[in-house]
Parts: sequence; C-alpha cells; structure tokens
Amino acid sequence: MPEAAATATAGPYARAAVIGVGLMGGSLALALKAGAQVRHVVGYSPSRQTLETALALGAIDEAAPDAASAARGCDLVVLAVPVGAMAASFAAIAPVLAPGCLVIDVGSTKGDVIAAARAHLGARLADFVPCHPIAGKEKAGAAAAHAGLYRERRAIVTPLPENTEDAIARASRLWQAVGSHVALMPADLHDQVFAAVSHLPHLLAFAYVNGLLDQPDGAAAMACGGPGFRDFSRVAGSEPAMWRDVLLANRDAVLAQSRHFRQALQQLEDDLRAGDAARLEAGVARASRARSAWTLDSGAAGAPPVAVADR
Amino acid sequence: MPEAAATATAGPYARAAVIGVGLMGGSLALALKAGAQVRHVVGYSPSRQTLETALALGAIDEAAPDAASAARGCDLVVLAVPVGAMAASFAAIAPVLAPGCLVIDVGSTKGDVIAAARAHLGARLADFVPCHPIAGKEKAGAAAAHAGLYRERRAIVTPLPENTEDAIARASRLWQAVGSHVALMPADLHDQVFAAVSHLPHLLAFAYVNGLLDQPDGAAAMACGGPGFRDFSRVAGSEPAMWRDVLLANRDAVLAQSRHFRQALQQLEDDLRAGDAARLEAGVARASRARSAWTLDSGAAGAPPVAVADR
Repeated sequence: MPEAAATATAGPYARAAVIGVGLMGGSLALALKAGAQVRHVVGYSPSRQTLETALALGAIDEAAPDAASAARGCDLVVLAVPVGAMAASFAAIAPVLAPGCLVIDVGSTKGDVIAAARAHLGARLADFVPCHPIAGKEKAGAAAAHAGLYRERRAIVTPLPENTEDAIARASRLWQAVGSHVALMPADLHDQVFAAVSHLPHLLAFAYVNGLLDQPDGAAAMACGGPGFRDFSRVAGSEPAMWRDVLLANRDAVLAQSRHFRQALQQLEDDLRAGDAARLEAGVARASRARSAWTLDSGAAGAPPVAVADR
Repeated sequence: MPEAAATATAGPYARAAVIGVGLMGGSLALALKAGAQVRHVVGYSPSRQTLETALALGAIDEAAPDAASAARGCDLVVLAVPVGAMAASFAAIAPVLAPGCLVIDVGSTKGDVIAAARAHLGARLADFVPCHPIAGKEKAGAAAAHAGLYRERRAIVTPLPENTEDAIARASRLWQAVGSHVALMPADLHDQVFAAVSHLPHLLAFAYVNGLLDQPDGAAAMACGGPGFRDFSRVAGSEPAMWRDVLLANRDAVLAQSRHFRQALQQLEDDLRAGDAARLEAGVARASRARSAWTLDSGAAGAPPVAVADR
C-alpha cells in the first residue's frame, strides 16, 4: 500500500518532545510512532533510569539533558509530568518554543495546569491545548508503557479561549490517531466531573487500604481478598507522587465529593445499625441499579458525555 | 482412560439437592456435573423463572416444588440461598435429611448461618459443614451460572466442633473437585476477615454510587468514568437482597471496619485540607506499597491465608 507508506514518512510532526516518559508519556510516544505521527522523538526525564528504559523500549529516539533542550526545535511538545511539576516544565520550555509548536499535556486536573500555563507560557499560550486522556493502569513507570494504552479510550480536551480552532483540531486529531475518542469540555466542568468519578475513588481506595493496615491483622486479612477486593482496591496501587499532586490540585472539588460520599455512607450505616432491612435493601438497590446500567463508554458513539458549554 | 470413565459413572454423590439455583448454586451444580461428582441434581428456587433457567442450562435435572422435596433422598444438599433465607431452608430440610447426607452452604457469612443450623438441624447438625467459596461476579442469577466459577478460587471451610473429620474431608474434596483451593478457618475469624476484605468494600462502593446519585449532575458524571471507576465501583452492582443479608448478618464487624476506614480517610483529608504534600504523599504511598505487593492468592500454594486456631 504505497499510500500508507507515504503517510508514514510524511507524518504531521517532524520532531516531538515528550517531557516525562513514564507510563503516560512513554505510551503516547510509542503510539505516535506506531501510527507514524512523528518522525523523531526527544525525551526528557529527571530520572536517568526512566530515560534509559524509554530509549530501550524505542519510545524515544534521543534523550535530552533537560526540558528546554528537548523542546528546542520541535513542532510538538507533550507534557507528561505529575501535575505538580507542570509549572516548572512550562517555565523551562517557554523560552525555546517555536511559534506554532503544538503543546499538549496529559494531566488529570486542568484548572491548575491551565493556571501554570497562563503564568509561564506568555506569547505561546495560544499553542497550548490542555488535554486529559482517560487511560492508565496501576503499574506506573516507563517499563509499563505500551502503544495501545490510549486505544478505545476517551480523551478530554479542554480548550482555552486563546486557542485557535486549528490548534484544537490538531490536538484532537493527535488523540484520534492513537485510537482515542475525543470529547471537548470546559476545564472547570472537567475538574468537577473527575473529582467525582476518578479522584474520589482514588482517595477512598487509599483510605480503605490504610484502614486495613492500621489493624494488627489487617495485612494478613488482605491475603484473603478475592476478585471483589482486587477490583475495589486496584487504584490504591497508583503512583503516590502523581496522586499527591492530583488531589492537591483539585482539593476543593475532591473534598466536596467526599462530603457527598460520607453522607451516603452515613445513611447506609444508620439503616444497618437500626437493622432496617427494607431501607438498607432500598439503598443498596439504588446503587446496584445505577451501576448495573453503567458501561465503560469510550465515547465511540461520538456524543460528549456531559453538557459542554458553548465556546 | 477406563479409570476416568469408571470414576465418572461412580461419582461420590448419587443425588444432590441444590436449594437456590442462582449464580452460586447454579454454577456449583454445573461444576459438579462437569466433574462427574454427582449423578442427578434436583433444584429448588422460589422463582419459577430461575428454576426454568437452571433446567434449560442443564444445571439441574429436575425441579422440586419446595426445599424439603428437593432434599428428600439425597446424599448431598447445597444451600445457596441469601444468608437471610438460610434459617428457613434448614428448617425445611431438617425433617427429611437422610443420615450421612452431607450438607454444605455457600454463604458469605458464617456465624449467622451456623446459628441458624444449630437452631434447626437437630441430630443432623454434625453433617453440616459451613463453607464460603470466594467467587462471584457482579452479574447475579441463574443465567450467569457457569461451570468454571469456582476454578482457581479459594474455598473457605469453617468446620463445626460437631463435624467429623470425614465430613470435613468430604466437603473439602467437593470444592477441590470443582477446582477450588481449600482453607480451613474458624467461623468467627472468617467473619472478621471478610468484613474487612469483602463486606466493607461493598458497603463503600454502594455509598460511593449513592453519593454520586445524590447530586443533580451525578448520573451524567458517571458516564465519564474510565477504567478506574469501572473497577472501583464494580461490586456496587451486586445483588441487593444478598448484600442486605450479608451486611445485616455481619453488622458489628462491618461497622467496626467502617470505623477504621473513616479514621484513615479523615487522616488523608486532614493532610489534603492542610495542603501538607509530604504527609499526603506518605499516606498515599503507604496504601500504594501494600496494594502493589498484593496479588490475588487463590491458595494454590496450599498455605492458609491467616492463622487458623487449633481444632
């Protein structure tokens, strides 16, 4: 197929920098290369070990000594560092960004990342399109990276008022090229929604495991956990530095979600303590009906998952 | 292999009753038949629909009009009803149980089931060996039954002081015949451990989904949930009647576990609210280390998962 071969050599990006080449950045680099979206990938990580793993995996072609060196001369820069490290990354790359170089991130929170971009990107702000791919696994690090991580997953894009339609379209096509389904959403709505469906579950799972470890026989009890324990607690194995940053970055929304959770827990416990079987069953049935009707929607149908404000 | 054929026709049980032919009972019937452990299976369910599904699946050979009719003349009776229905089932079968007929249950709690057996089984108590296979899925009902449900899973046996070694060995061999790894454990320890690793996660998952539904945009937010949401909330889709019974049956232990959880959650929230990144990360890292080191242990190695008191 000569057409495919031509596409492969002509990919939209000649030189991409991936700042942070762990699971998310490493996987995106692999996927972009597998899809012939980029000719050459320069990677940077403060960890020499991570850089070497990314090189060995073929996720990056070249290791840079710092973020600025990586970003210099690129037409695409991907920021895949913990959200707490975004500000320093924007500050490092801002002086060297070529005009028209598309900058995206993969952070789990958007309000704080956008604030950091506004503080540091200056004239290049319009080229930054904030993104959040809904993908990941409990095993972090470059060694876990694989080209299929973003396939049949949703990628949320939260455009800035400063973004051109062309920049938004380029970011969207990038995610589509690695197999994701794109949904546009305002950043503040994104942060509310993901406090509810992602950040709170992580907080609760961390607390649940810690509550077990606080008991003398808790670690031994964990060994009896079956498939239910495995799934419920899976996200508790997530990377501490990343989740420290996400929780801090979205603190108010996460704490607000936790209050809703605590009220619902209190209601179930009150019914349980009172031995009120009918009310307890009704409470359980409410959750069970809603969860049974839920399916993992990658957005393949194309409809945005929640109302999106007009831009 | 004539030996295998001989075993197949001579299986240890001639006639088994399965009281409750939903996911757990239906799957055990299918597995026992697939393993040639029983020649003829009589099923009973108060739901005509469930009985017909079990007949259509080949899980049972015959539908009985009530539990006593099912159990009469059997050499094996399996109770696979919600734990709140165990007392009525023991009362129904007690008058017709043949001496030496092995009785097992598959209930998720053991203290309450044993109390019901003591209240109703009379002289047949020694033939009842309490069991809890650690298997299941969020989809309940006879239609979800399959012969592989218990394969490579742990089956907990919590013997009574009245049980003979022979009865315990027969129950253990039954679970081994369907592919499970057997662990013996005192009933009270079982109920403590499973409050921690199973019942509390269910309660928290029910509360989490209800906390979302309590918010005007909660249902819409759920549509944005990714793989983390899927796994964390999976057990919230469990069967309401079964979990009403389990939570009520093990109420004190579940509420005690919830107190440990709430304290651990409070600690993480205090650190988050204070913006104490170092303490927050330490709390997350503690959970992450423990969960990352955990693996689903089916007991294949043979060692009991927790200390088992001498009998």
